Amino acid sequence: MRLITEVAAEAGIDEQHLELYGKYKSKLSPSLWQDIQHKPDGKLVLVTAVNPTPAGEGKTLTTIGLAQALNAAGVRTVAALREPSLGPCLGMKGGATGGGKSQLVPSDDINLHFTGDIHAVTSAHNLLAAMIDNHMFHGNELKLDPQRIVWKRVMDMNDRSLRSIVTGLGDGNGTVRESGFQISTASEIMAVLCLCENLEDLKERMGRILIGYDQLGRPVTARELGAVEAMTALLKEAVKPNLVQTLEGTPAIVHGGPFANIAHGCSSVIGTRYALKLGEVVVTEAGFGADLGAEKFMNIKCRQAGLVPSAAVLVVTVKSLKYNGGIHKEQLGSENREALRAGLCNMERHIENLGKFGVPVLVAINHFAGDTEAEVEEVLAACRRLKVPAAVSRVWAEGGAGGLALAGELKKLLAGDRKDQFAPLYADGLDIPGKINTIVREIYRGNEAVFSPAAKRSLAVIERLGLQQLQVCMAKTPYSFSDQPRLLGAPEGFTLGVRDITLSLGAGFAVVVTGNIVTMPGLPATPAAEGLRVDADGQICGLE
Amino acid sequence: MRLITEVAAEAGIDEQHLELYGKYKSKLSPSLWQDIQHKPDGKLVLVTAVNPTPAGEGKTLTTIGLAQALNAAGVRTVAALREPSLGPCLGMKGGATGGGKSQLVPSDDINLHFTGDIHAVTSAHNLLAAMIDNHMFHGNELKLDPQRIVWKRVMDMNDRSLRSIVTGLGDGNGTVRESGFQISTASEIMAVLCLCENLEDLKERMGRILIGYDQLGRPVTARELGAVEAMTALLKEAVKPNLVQTLEGTPAIVHGGPFANIAHGCSSVIGTRYALKLGEVVVTEAGFGADLGAEKFMNIKCRQAGLVPSAAVLVVTVKSLKYNGGIHKEQLGSENREALRAGLCNMERHIENLGKFGVPVLVAINHFAGDTEAEVEEVLAACRRLKVPAAVSRVWAEGGAGGLALAGELKKLLAGDRKDQFAPLYADGLDIPGKINTIVREIYRGNEAVFSPAAKRSLAVIERLGLQQLQVCMAKTPYSFSDQPRLLGAPEGFTLGVRDITLSLGAGFAVVVTGNIVTMPGLPATPAAEGLRVDADGQICGLE
Repeated sequence: MRLITEVAAEAGIDEQHLELYGKYKSKLSPSLWQDIQHKPDGKLVLVTAVNPTPAGEGKTLTTIGLAQALNAAGVRTVAALREPSLGPCLGMKGGATGGGKSQLVPSDDINLHFTGDIHAVTSAHNLLAAMIDNHMFHGNELKLDPQRIVWKRVMDMNDRSLRSIVTGLGDGNGTVRESGFQISTASEIMAVLCLCENLEDLKERMGRILIGYDQLGRPVTARELGAVEAMTALLKEAVKPNLVQTLEGTPAIVHGGPFANIAHGCSSVIGTRYALKLGEVVVTEAGFGADLGAEKFMNIKCRQAGLVPSAAVLVVTVKSLKYNGGIHKEQLGSENREALRAGLCNMERHIENLGKFGVPVLVAINHFAGDTEAEVEEVLAACRRLKVPAAVSRVWAEGGAGGLALAGELKKLLAGDRKDQFAPLYADGLDIPGKINTIVREIYRGNEAVFSPAAKRSLAVIERLGLQQLQVCMAKTPYSFSDQPRLLGAPEGFTLGVRDITLSLGAGFAVVVTGNIVTMPGLPATPAAEGLRVDADGQICGLE
Repeated sequence: MRLITEVAAEAGIDEQHLELYGKYKSKLSPSLWQDIQHKPDGKLVLVTAVNPTPAGEGKTLTTIGLAQALNAAGVRTVAALREPSLGPCLGMKGGATGGGKSQLVPSDDINLHFTGDIHAVTSAHNLLAAMIDNHMFHGNELKLDPQRIVWKRVMDMNDRSLRSIVTGLGDGNGTVRESGFQISTASEIMAVLCLCENLEDLKERMGRILIGYDQLGRPVTARELGAVEAMTALLKEAVKPNLVQTLEGTPAIVHGGPFANIAHGCSSVIGTRYALKLGEVVVTEAGFGADLGAEKFMNIKCRQAGLVPSAAVLVVTVKSLKYNGGIHKEQLGSENREALRAGLCNMERHIENLGKFGVPVLVAINHFAGDTEAEVEEVLAACRRLKVPAAVSRVWAEGGAGGLALAGELKKLLAGDRKDQFAPLYADGLDIPGKINTIVREIYRGNEAVFSPAAKRSLAVIERLGLQQLQVCMAKTPYSFSDQPRLLGAPEGFTLGVRDITLSLGAGFAVVVTGNIVTMPGLPATPAAEGLRVDADGQICGLE
């Protein structure tokens, strides 16, 4: 690992703009922005994927590997990524910093507390929650309805026992009411942190956060509770982007990590802006497959921030295509060209969808050891038929060197500037049901959205409060284009059941809840935490 | 503010041993310990106080001011202090970094997230909690009794609604049971962090933590749950002491902050050890008045770590003595020598008590603007009668310069080496009731402890498990020598009601709960959080 001061210097960042966290991590000071804001922006490349499968697609891995490869090919490139959440690291998923020769380092630190951003989000969120209950305890001047408080508490831990709880029991402990915990990355504060432009904008947005309703049904915001300045104080460091490096010394801005279902699943706008000033190319990613991640990246993040992506890289694997072709998880290791051909429809639809945003697409075939040449050739042939460039990527095994073919294709794609063709999929002025149905028809290819009674009540509130200009943030299973996790491939003709619509007024979107979205994961029978080992020097083993 | 690298260099710390957190905070690397461990130790001075009153005694203030004064007087001095907890900062108390010209800086950072140590304690604690419920969810191989889980969850926030909750409600969310949250500083993990010698010892101690009992009544520990390695990983940075500075550039090691009631209320042993190698004198403090803070400092921290204090500074104020003399809070501003004389018994008893540990005492009269000369002279005269050195301290208004008289008296006291006279108050071999009664009679001056049925059941468990060698950690109101908060001055002849005894096996003590000890504070009607302001540059106002 190189000192982060060296990595920064090479990226053109003077040491005075660094706020070091040890020798290998740094926050970037707002003074840096003063220095670089007038520079031209680099080109923004989104890494997205087919629908996720149990085999893993390697989106983060490809993002890191591609950034390394571009640098190796002489293109000054910065990666812009999300911060891992502690809960999943200790639960099912393990670390979230790539793998093999394409990793962020120091990976243990990044996977655990990093620079404390998620802890700061947790604190700000829970301060607001404590102030809500405290307000009701001390006279309830705002006449908050305890049955209609929508602001829960958060913790960065997988803890299913906290999903649904009763608080305020016992003498002198406040109002007894039902509530619960979400994982911290599901906090609207995290979404706000990732969409804001600066500390002032963060404050402004947090002021708009809906905490619940009063006894007359009037919406009540965080601003009315007097909580916003203190929440801003808690986030004053978290709003600064973090600089780390990849195993090959490529600079990576790792900042923010909102949930990809009830939030938009992209790294921070602030971090992206810094990266665009520092790199000729910025490689970033968005959560889940392109039906969710890329859609929200374009329709929410790019729209709000006025960002224009120059290309999208769609990560596919032979295994994920076979799985989408109907093969069981256990059989993915053996060659099966028929299943692979059956699953190509999933890739094809994602390619078509990305085209609807006016963004050129490059397919990255993330190569696994067991993939046969014939299988890989099937994918390449399909891309040729679709007239979409493609390349095999071996960045896990080979690092940047294994991504040179991919980088070469990307350079060709970026040479033709098509930025003016980019457009989000729906207009701001369209109403919320219209926006939802646009996504259902254009991206998911279902017939229409069907609204539950609860969702209809929410639509009435949106109507009454004049909130149709909000974006929609789809909370849907990532495994299928539809709301049914087992409907793989490229389904059509289904309806999308909307169970509820909640308001994230600080983030600026309405969350459209389909199916059973869990916002507090549980631990598996054998949590990843049980496999960790730490020696006397603090060296961790078992986190990746 | 000077760069922390400069402060460190002056304290003899090479830059290679620093792990910077921005420009003004640093963790000290274990490599520093390799360098300094063979140096002779400096002298350890404990700052303690009379029983706390609503007027505030200024113990932290005096610790910082005295360290500054000693440095001004040519004695190389390091302050060793506790980390502030976020909850109280945003609640009733405000910041906890001293005040006026005797402050730790950067105070906002130290008061908010600092270097993330308390967040790490929160994470490690809640990981264990999640793994307990998860174990019961996935088959409960250890046959844990859900009604006898003693491990709660923690949050660094004042949130009374979380004191008593029911968790695991809803379908698929685990065992429904009563539980609750404590503030993070009340976590046994914090006590363990502050008493351990290094990462290995931390791990070992966490393994011994009692999480509850199985269906046969057998105690179950964190080790049996397989949680300890991951908890250690989460604490690998938190175990390293933090270096900051005072307003006058005096180095301060600020590390750990356990509750002063259900824990021992002292900064970390590791931090103290580093400080003793770096300073000729180390000034440290302990929570609450000397009946709790100094007693636990001597009987728990010094005993476990083999530390020997060379002197104790007892902070008194004219106001606190008048309050102990029976005057109402509202009348403390006016001269009242009679009340003052009536309250001197409180000071006198603390002086006597400190003598029982064989530690020489110096009285620091922390001067407030409204104190009259006659009042101050009353205190000085009392000290002359008691043959105890005393000095007026004006460190709030004047910084180190206002503490020169105090520093001068301390230097005289330290010149006569009386270290061999130090001894804890009770022997390890005495049984738990014997230890409790020693403290009741020798320190509190009550007749005896009276045990509730619950406490008697706990004593039977202690007997059965052979745990008599534990130290006792008294959880008592700080406002009185007795367990009755309004019994001021120097009461005698009372009995101390022991409501419960809980086991902190990792910390190595039994917590003796008297009266109603709240381990999760609530917010006041107007929380300090409401008074904060943050400007666009992240400058905070209103935290001190």
